[in-house]
Amino acid sequence: MRSVEWYTDKGQPGIVRMIDQRFLPAEFRLLELDDLEKVARAIRDMAVRGAPAIGATAGFGMALAAYRSRAGDRGGLLRDLENAAATLRASRPTAVNLAWAVERVLERAAGERDVERIRAVALEEAQAIADEDVAINHRLGQVGAAVVPEGATILHHCNTGALATVDYGTALGVIRAAHEAGKHIHVLVDETRPRLQGARLTAWELQRAGIPFTLIADNAAGHFLRTGQVDLVLVGADRVAADGDVANKIGTYKLAVVARENGVPFYPCVPTSTIDLSTPTGDDIPIEERPPEEVTGISFLGRAVVPEGARVANPAFDVTPHRYVTGIVTENGIAYPPFVISLLRVLEAPFDV
Amino acid sequence: MRSVEWYTDKGQPGIVRMIDQRFLPAEFRLLELDDLEKVARAIRDMAVRGAPAIGATAGFGMALAAYRSRAGDRGGLLRDLENAAATLRASRPTAVNLAWAVERVLERAAGERDVERIRAVALEEAQAIADEDVAINHRLGQVGAAVVPEGATILHHCNTGALATVDYGTALGVIRAAHEAGKHIHVLVDETRPRLQGARLTAWELQRAGIPFTLIADNAAGHFLRTGQVDLVLVGADRVAADGDVANKIGTYKLAVVARENGVPFYPCVPTSTIDLSTPTGDDIPIEERPPEEVTGISFLGRAVVPEGARVANPAFDVTPHRYVTGIVTENGIAYPPFVISLLRVLEAPFDV
Repeated sequence: MRSVEWYTDKGQPGIVRMIDQRFLPAEFRLLELDDLEKVARAIRDMAVRGAPAIGATAGFGMALAAYRSRAGDRGGLLRDLENAAATLRASRPTAVNLAWAVERVLERAAGERDVERIRAVALEEAQAIADEDVAINHRLGQVGAAVVPEGATILHHCNTGALATVDYGTALGVIRAAHEAGKHIHVLVDETRPRLQGARLTAWELQRAGIPFTLIADNAAGHFLRTGQVDLVLVGADRVAADGDVANKIGTYKLAVVARENGVPFYPCVPTSTIDLSTPTGDDIPIEERPPEEVTGISFLGRAVVPEGARVANPAFDVTPHRYVTGIVTENGIAYPPFVISLLRVLEAPFDV
Repeated sequence: MRSVEWYTDKGQPGIVRMIDQRFLPAEFRLLELDDLEKVARAIRDMAVRGAPAIGATAGFGMALAAYRSRAGDRGGLLRDLENAAATLRASRPTAVNLAWAVERVLERAAGERDVERIRAVALEEAQAIADEDVAINHRLGQVGAAVVPEGATILHHCNTGALATVDYGTALGVIRAAHEAGKHIHVLVDETRPRLQGARLTAWELQRAGIPFTLIADNAAGHFLRTGQVDLVLVGADRVAADGDVANKIGTYKLAVVARENGVPFYPCVPTSTIDLSTPTGDDIPIEERPPEEVTGISFLGRAVVPEGARVANPAFDVTPHRYVTGIVTENGIAYPPFVISLLRVLEAPFDV
């Protein structure tokens, strides 16, 4: 199934259904959400994560809000949708896809005259966002596979796969496409502390896809880069600023610097919806600070690891300045420096889903 | 107490006693070791770790072997000591202090004529190694504190404290000395996956010493460096090659590259016994590959994190080429580039314990 979808059971009102990513790989659990607050909480608590998956979830959240609203007239329903939009936007600050998907549904809804039509188009638009995401990722995979040499070892950070999107994945979609094209690739999987999306989710997806991989502690990535054991680095992104600066999972910046230091290409892979021209540079991207429990909540070989009362800082993302970025892979082609020009070009390129 | 010591209980033969670092901070446990195999296992399984602490432990291990040997003559006892030396050297490959301490005891033993004298001097030499380590660390702390500005935020990797040495610490000794001198410092503590020595041991030591600190995931270090929140990086080392290349805990190399990229000074802090002129460059330092369980053996918020059957690579150290090293702090002063000359100078400097 898709990581998130609209689900209707024989005449029941629809709900949002998603894979609860917090329990993988130990358990495959589904979450069924029948009101907007629950959807916002699922995003905030990271039952669903990954910029494109968050975008699709927010779209379905808007549809859910439209169907669950008790407003009897157009004005009331649109007000409820504005409130829903505000709740969703506040759930996580860094990924731009969230605001983008909410905006798409809002705009579409505002163009309709009556309550029933607004409900119908809200769901239609949310479904379109999800369907487009899958199509975009397949196209992005084809584009990106061109930069993956036969026999390549690819270093990958966080999770950018079917779980981070609606299906197939962005950077992991490129890896899938290269594998499906018959290239003999190997993936070095950063475990990605603190939430371990690499160890938990990327390893799980690669294992199911039959793509050979080796799991490493994030600290080991430098060793493999320095000793010539990595051919390219592929990551996703939560927001790309107009100048090509990239906000992505914490640890990406270190990786990009060390990749460039060793002459290893570094490609963020994103749908164009992740490109935010209204954000001039990386310094304008808000960096979410997440709860200390993500750092303290691990145990090692069965034992607690952090002394009680220890103060913790836990930024969820970092910014990689564009000078470390080789190219940005999108469904419309690869943007190369200078990004202020090339990002405009990939945004304007026609793409039929 | 010291992290490792020789312990004699009313007329009993002596034993090696150490803090079992695998259980901290949850539990403070002591290990009492009455034969050489147990000492070698404690080193291999990292009940004791940190290059200087391993050195002192190996010295006491040699003394233990001398006292437990059943050899009745000088030749037999020296053969037993040679065997003990081989066992200890094989326990961990990267830290040079281990081989250095074993060699010191062997040389001292070889200079004696009878069995009782050999036993006595083996223990004497082991005790001297341990006592010197403490004195050296205090001196090293004084030397290093000079490069710590008032109000500095110091980024620290792994554990280099009282637990990594016999007492006081190397890089953490510098931090202690700066704190004791009244400087208002703050330490950013890398948790240091996979074994989490930062989260488990450094946080514990800093808390006990009353030195303010913030624990971070290793991935977050780049963010703090890039955003100007770090004044200097202090680490230890397991071996310094003749050209100034530094082998240290996995992750150090990434940190050094990103520190230099941001103009932040990077200082390994080591006793001169860690400098190995017989190793020409970092490429000649063997990098220990440790068991996959160190990566897979964690759980996050009570759940297993790695899919079964996932292949893991777990190099324990990496090499930081000397071009990223600002200076190497030793008890005899700070070596600055070119290290091929300055390391000779600190090695030759007189130091009275």
